[in-house]
Amino acid sequence: MTNKLAKTNILGAPSWKFLLLSATLFFSYAIPAYADSHEEAPAKEPIAVEAQPGEAPPYKDYEEFAKSDGFEIFTINNLWILIAAFLVFTMHLGFATLESGLCQKKNTVNILFKNVFIISIGIITYAFYGFNAMYPGDMIVDGVGDWNGYFAMGSWFGVDNNDVTMVTDAYNPGYPWWTDFLFQAMFAATGATIVSGAVAERVKLGSFMIFATLFVGLAYPTAGSWKWGTGWLDQMGFYDFAGSSIVHAFGGFGALACVLVLGPRKGKYTENGLRPIPASNFPLATIGVFLLFLGWFGFNGGSVLSADPRTVAFVCVTTALAAASGALSSMVCSYLACKKPDLSMALNGILAGLVGITAGADSVGIADSIIIGLIAGAIVVYSILFFDKLKIDDPVGAISVHGVCGIWGTLAVGIFSEEYTVGTQLIGTLSYSVFAFVFAYVVFSILKMTIGVRVTEEEEERGLDITEHGQEAYGS
Amino acid sequence: MTNKLAKTNILGAPSWKFLLLSATLFFSYAIPAYADSHEEAPAKEPIAVEAQPGEAPPYKDYEEFAKSDGFEIFTINNLWILIAAFLVFTMHLGFATLESGLCQKKNTVNILFKNVFIISIGIITYAFYGFNAMYPGDMIVDGVGDWNGYFAMGSWFGVDNNDVTMVTDAYNPGYPWWTDFLFQAMFAATGATIVSGAVAERVKLGSFMIFATLFVGLAYPTAGSWKWGTGWLDQMGFYDFAGSSIVHAFGGFGALACVLVLGPRKGKYTENGLRPIPASNFPLATIGVFLLFLGWFGFNGGSVLSADPRTVAFVCVTTALAAASGALSSMVCSYLACKKPDLSMALNGILAGLVGITAGADSVGIADSIIIGLIAGAIVVYSILFFDKLKIDDPVGAISVHGVCGIWGTLAVGIFSEEYTVGTQLIGTLSYSVFAFVFAYVVFSILKMTIGVRVTEEEEERGLDITEHGQEAYGS
Amino acid sequence: MTNKLAKTNILGAPSWKFLLLSATLFFSYAIPAYADSHEEAPAKEPIAVEAQPGEAPPYKDYEEFAKSDGFEIFTINNLWILIAAFLVFTMHLGFATLESGLCQKKNTVNILFKNVFIISIGIITYAFYGFNAMYPGDMIVDGVGDWNGYFAMGSWFGVDNNDVTMVTDAYNPGYPWWTDFLFQAMFAATGATIVSGAVAERVKLGSFMIFATLFVGLAYPTAGSWKWGTGWLDQMGFYDFAGSSIVHAFGGFGALACVLVLGPRKGKYTENGLRPIPASNFPLATIGVFLLFLGWFGFNGGSVLSADPRTVAFVCVTTALAAASGALSSMVCSYLACKKPDLSMALNGILAGLVGITAGADSVGIADSIIIGLIAGAIVVYSILFFDKLKIDDPVGAISVHGVCGIWGTLAVGIFSEEYTVGTQLIGTLSYSVFAFVFAYVVFSILKMTIGVRVTEEEEERGLDITEHGQEAYGS
Repeated sequence: MTNKLAKTNILGAPSWKFLLLSATLFFSYAIPAYADSHEEAPAKEPIAVEAQPGEAPPYKDYEEFAKSDGFEIFTINNLWILIAAFLVFTMHLGFATLESGLCQKKNTVNILFKNVFIISIGIITYAFYGFNAMYPGDMIVDGVGDWNGYFAMGSWFGVDNNDVTMVTDAYNPGYPWWTDFLFQAMFAATGATIVSGAVAERVKLGSFMIFATLFVGLAYPTAGSWKWGTGWLDQMGFYDFAGSSIVHAFGGFGALACVLVLGPRKGKYTENGLRPIPASNFPLATIGVFLLFLGWFGFNGGSVLSADPRTVAFVCVTTALAAASGALSSMVCSYLACKKPDLSMALNGILAGLVGITAGADSVGIADSIIIGLIAGAIVVYSILFFDKLKIDDPVGAISVHGVCGIWGTLAVGIFSEEYTVGTQLIGTLSYSVFAFVFAYVVFSILKMTIGVRVTEEEEERGLDITEHGQEAYGS
Repeated sequence: MTNKLAKTNILGAPSWKFLLLSATLFFSYAIPAYADSHEEAPAKEPIAVEAQPGEAPPYKDYEEFAKSDGFEIFTINNLWILIAAFLVFTMHLGFATLESGLCQKKNTVNILFKNVFIISIGIITYAFYGFNAMYPGDMIVDGVGDWNGYFAMGSWFGVDNNDVTMVTDAYNPGYPWWTDFLFQAMFAATGATIVSGAVAERVKLGSFMIFATLFVGLAYPTAGSWKWGTGWLDQMGFYDFAGSSIVHAFGGFGALACVLVLGPRKGKYTENGLRPIPASNFPLATIGVFLLFLGWFGFNGGSVLSADPRTVAFVCVTTALAAASGALSSMVCSYLACKKPDLSMALNGILAGLVGITAGADSVGIADSIIIGLIAGAIVVYSILFFDKLKIDDPVGAISVHGVCGIWGTLAVGIFSEEYTVGTQLIGTLSYSVFAFVFAYVVFSILKMTIGVRVTEEEEERGLDITEHGQEAYGS
Repeated sequence: MTNKLAKTNILGAPSWKFLLLSATLFFSYAIPAYADSHEEAPAKEPIAVEAQPGEAPPYKDYEEFAKSDGFEIFTINNLWILIAAFLVFTMHLGFATLESGLCQKKNTVNILFKNVFIISIGIITYAFYGFNAMYPGDMIVDGVGDWNGYFAMGSWFGVDNNDVTMVTDAYNPGYPWWTDFLFQAMFAATGATIVSGAVAERVKLGSFMIFATLFVGLAYPTAGSWKWGTGWLDQMGFYDFAGSSIVHAFGGFGALACVLVLGPRKGKYTENGLRPIPASNFPLATIGVFLLFLGWFGFNGGSVLSADPRTVAFVCVTTALAAASGALSSMVCSYLACKKPDLSMALNGILAGLVGITAGADSVGIADSIIIGLIAGAIVVYSILFFDKLKIDDPVGAISVHGVCGIWGTLAVGIFSEEYTVGTQLIGTLSYSVFAFVFAYVVFSILKMTIGVRVTEEEEERGLDITEHGQEAYGS
C-alpha cells in the first residue's frame, strides 16, 4: 500500500518530470558553454596579491610566491575563509534540523531530502554557472566594467592551474580562487534553503527541486552580482556586509511569493480561527538554531574576506551580541504577546538578531549591535503573528526571520553607520526583495500551471514522507 | 486547558517577576555605570604586543602595526582563540542536548529554553559587567594592583576603537580585546549551564532565570578574578589552567546547593528505595557528550591564550587522552558496580576525564593525563551512586561530573606537576567550591522564600513543558 | 525483569570476558614495552624543519626556533592539522548518529555505546602502540629503511619534550609530533566504526569490543604503514591520498567479513523475499551524514599535512564537488531503480562521493572530481541492491559505501591522474581489502568459536538495548 502510493505519486505523476529536472541541469551547463565559445570569455588572468591592474603577476612560480613576504598572511587568510566555508556549510545542517524539527513528523523525510538536494545542487550549479556570473570581475580591472552591472553570463568556474597566486581579477586578492568559490558556494545554497522551510508540508517535491535549481543557480548569482560582483547597487553606494538583503531578504521574499502561490497548509486557518500546528521535535529545532548561530560566525566572520584580526574579531562580537539580545528580546516580546515563555519564539529571536546584524556587522558599533538585535527580536515576534493574521502560512517563520529582519538589518546600516544612507539602503534591500519575490512568483506560477506545485489533499493529510518517498522519519 | 495552565503558572504566578528580571538586568548595568562616574575607570590604555608596562604603544596606527614583525603571529593567535570560542559555544549546544536527552520528555522544552536563555544572558551580562570585573587588569601594569584581589567592579566591556593593537593591560598581549571577550564570554555561561541540568524537571523557570543571571553575571566573574584576573589565589600560587575549579567545581557546587534547597524529583526516592527515572533520548544525550568533547578542544586548547604550536598541540593531546581513558574507566567501573555496560556512565566518563584534565592540561605529563582520566572515570561512577544514596537528586550527574571531578582535576595538578603543591591546590579548589555553594545557597534560598523555586506537584507531574510553556517537545 | 536479563546476558555470560578485554589492552602495552627493552628503539631523534637527514637540529632551543623564519608557517600548519583532527573527531559523532538513525530503536543504546567505546579505545591503543607502528619513520632517514616495509612493532608514542621542534623523522616535518598523533589517532578509530554499522543489531557487545580493539589497535596501523609509513606499497608507487583504501576499503571489507561470519538479521530475508527493516530516525541519520560531510573537509584537507593554501583549497573543493555530485547521482539512480526519491540513498550518495574522492582529492582535476562523485553515487545504489540480493545484510550500507566505493576511488586515481597507474592502484586497494577481510574473518571466526559473536534469537527480538544494557534509547 505504502509502496504503491509512493510509486504513483512521486513528483506529481510521470517520471518525465525528472527528465525536465535533468534538462534544467544540462541547460545550466549548455548555455555557458555556448556563451564561452561565442563571446570573449571574461578576463580571468590572475592578478597577484600586490599587483596593480594591468601589471604582470610578480612571481615566477608558486615556489617563489611561497617565499614572498605576504605568503604567511595569504595562508592564514586561506585557512580562515576555508573554516568559514565549513561553518556556513554547518548552517545547512542547521536549516535541515530546524525545519524538520518545526514541522510535523509525517513530512520530515521530505524536508530532509530537500535539504540534501539543495546543498548538492547549490554547489554544482555554482561551479557550472553561478560563481562566474556573480563575480564577473572585470570592474576591478577596468574601473568601468565591460559588463553592464545587471547581468553577467556565468560559466564553468575553474581557473588555470598555472596561475601562480591563484587569485583572480575579482574582489579577492588575499586568498585562493578555490577557497573563494567554496565559501561563496556555501552561501549560494542558503537562499533556496530559506524557501524550503516556508513551503514545507504541502509542496510537490519535483516542482520544488526545479524551482530551487533556478533560484539558487540563476536568480541568486544574478542578484548577488549587483552588489558583491561590483554591479549597479555597489556603485550606487549600497552596503550589505554579509547578506541581510543579498541572502536573507532574497530568500525570505522568494519564500513569501512561493507561499502566496501555494496557499496555507490544510486545516491551519479554520472558520474558528487559527489552529496551531505544533512542532514535532523541539530538540531538533534547537540543534538547528544553535548550529545556525555557530555557522553565522563563519557567515559574517568569513565575509571580512581576510583573517584581519581587528575586523574578524569585531564582526564575531557584534554577531554574538545581536544573537543574544535578539533571543532576550523575543523572549520578552513573546511573553508579553502570548503570556508564556515560548521556545520557538526564543529560537527565532536568535535568528532574527543574526539576520539583523548581518548587513552591518563590520560597520555599526558594538552597542549598536545590541540595539539591532533587540529590535530584530521584537520584529520577528510581531511579524510572525502578523503573517498568521493575513493567513500567510509559513511553518518555520522564514519570511519574518529572513525577509522582514533582513530588511531591518539592511536599513540599520543606514541608521547606525555614518558612511551609508537609509535611502540607498532602502533602494538596495527593496531591489533584492522585489526581484526575489517576482522571480519566485513567476517561476512558481509557471510550475503551478504546468506540473503543479502542491500535493493533493489526501497526500497532505497522509504526509509527504509516505506519499512522496515511501519512507517514515521515525520508525520502530 | 493547556494554554490556561500555561498562562497562570509561568514564573510562579504574576508577571511582575519578569519585571524583577528586567530590574536585575538593568541593575547589572546601572551599578557599573554609576561606578564609572564615581571612581577612576580601570586603566584600559592599550599595551602593545611587545611594550613594557609604562611604555607607549610602539605603533602609530593599525597599518603600521600590520606591517610589524609580530603581526602574523598576532593574526594566527586571533584566529585560534576565535575558533576556540566557537568550539566553547558548541559546548552550549552539547549541554542543551545532553540535559534534554537525560531528562524526561515532558520537561524537554523547559530545559532547552533555559539553555537558550543562559547563553544569551551570559554573553550580554559579560559585556555589560562581567568581563571587566573578571579581568581588572591593573595587576600586570603595577606589579601590585590597585584592586584588592577579591572583588573588582565591572563595567561596559568596550574598548576605544583607536587602540592601535586592540590589546589591553589585562593578561592577553597576543590577540585583540574583542576576541578575548568572546572567548571568555562563552566560558562564563558554562557555570550556569551546569546548574541547569542538576535542577531540571522541577525548578520554576522564572526563579532559575534570576538565579542564572546572578550566578553567571555576578558570582562567576568575581570568583574568576581571584585566579584569572590575577587576584589573591593567583598570587598565592594556585593553578587552574582552563577551569577545573573556576568553571566546573564552581558550577558543580553551585548545583549542589540548588539541589539541596530544591529537593529531589517527586517519586525518585520512595519507601521501597530508589526508582530510576530513565533518560528520554539517548541519541540526544550522546550527541551532547560528543559535542562537549569537541568543544573541550577549544575550552582547553584556547586556554593556552595563543596559538603556540607546542603548547596547543600538547594540551589537545592530554585532553583527548583523558577523555578516552575516562570513558574506558567508567565503562569498567560501572560494569563492576552495576553488572551492565551502562551508556550514561560511559558518557559521564568522557566528561569526567575532560573535567579532570582541565586544570592541568598544559602542565601534567602525557601519561599522567591517562591516569587522571582513569581516576576521574572511576570517581564519577561512585560519586553518582553516592549522591543517590544521600538522596541528592541530580538528573544529569552534574554535581559528580563537574563538582567532584573538578576538585580531583585541580588536586591532580598538585600531584602530577612539580611546580604546584597539593596544599595550595586544595585551598584554591575549596575556595571556588565553597564560594559557589554559599552564593547559590543564599540566592536560591532567598528566591525560595520569596517567589518560590519549585513548581507545584501537579505541574511536576504533568511536566514543565505543558505547564510553564504550553508546548510539547515531541509533537505528532 | 529487564535488569535480570541485563545481568545475565552481557558479553555472552560470565564477566571473565571483560578480563579478556583488559588482558588485550594490557597486551598491547606489554609487547611494545618488552620490545623496547630488547631491540634498539626506533630512531626518534628530532629532525628540524629544514634539517637534512643526519644533520643536527639547527635550533638551540624552542625560543630560538620560535624566532626562526619558518615558525609562522609551522604555527599555521599546526593550527590547521589540529582543526582537521577536530573535524575528523566530528565524523565519529557522524557515524554514531548515522548508524543509530538507520537501525531500529531497540538497538540504539548498543550502537551508541559501541561508538563511544571505539573512539576511546582507538585513541588509547594508538597512543600505546599504533602510532609508532604505523609511522616507523626510519625510511626517510636512511633511504632504505631498517624495518621491513610490512610490519613494524609499535610502542608508546611519546616524544622527548626536549625536542626543540617537536618534529620527528617520520613524514611530517611541518608541525608538531603531538598534532600528528592526534590527527592520525582520529583516523585510526574510523576503520572500526565502519564495521560497527554493518554488524549492528545482532552482534554480541563483548565480542565486538575485542574485535574492534584488535582491528583498530593492531590491523589498522600495520596495514597503514604499508603506504603512509613508507612501506612496500609506497615504494611500489601506490597512491592513496587520504585513505579510500587505507581507511575506507579497509573498514568496508573488514565489515564484509564480519557480516559473513555473523549472518543476516533475523527476518530480513524471508521465503517471500526481502523484508526491509526501516530506519528508526531519519533526522538522526541526516545529522550523521552532514557531520560526516563536514568532517571530511578535515579528513581530506588535513591529509595535505600542511596548510599550504593552494593544495588545501583545491582538496576541499574536489571533496565538496564529489559529495554533491554523489548525492545527485544517487538520487537519480535510486529513483530509476526504486521509482521513488529515497532519502537513505541520497545520504549514502553523499558518503559515496566522499569515499570516492578521498584517494585522489589532491591529484585528480576539478572536473574529474565531479565525474568520480557521479560514478560513486551510482555504484553505491546498485551495490547496496546487489548485496541485498546476495542476502548479505548490512544495515547501514557500510560495505557498499566504504568498501566498494573505496576501491572505486582508489582506481579512479589511476584513471584520472597521469602520475599513477591503474595496475598499481589495483594491487594496493586489493591488498588493503583482502588483508582487512582476512584479518577480520579470522579474528571474528575465532571469537565465534570461543565466546560467540551473535546474541540469541530472543535477545535479537527484544533488542540489544534491553538485553545487553538494560536501557532504552527513547524513554517517556
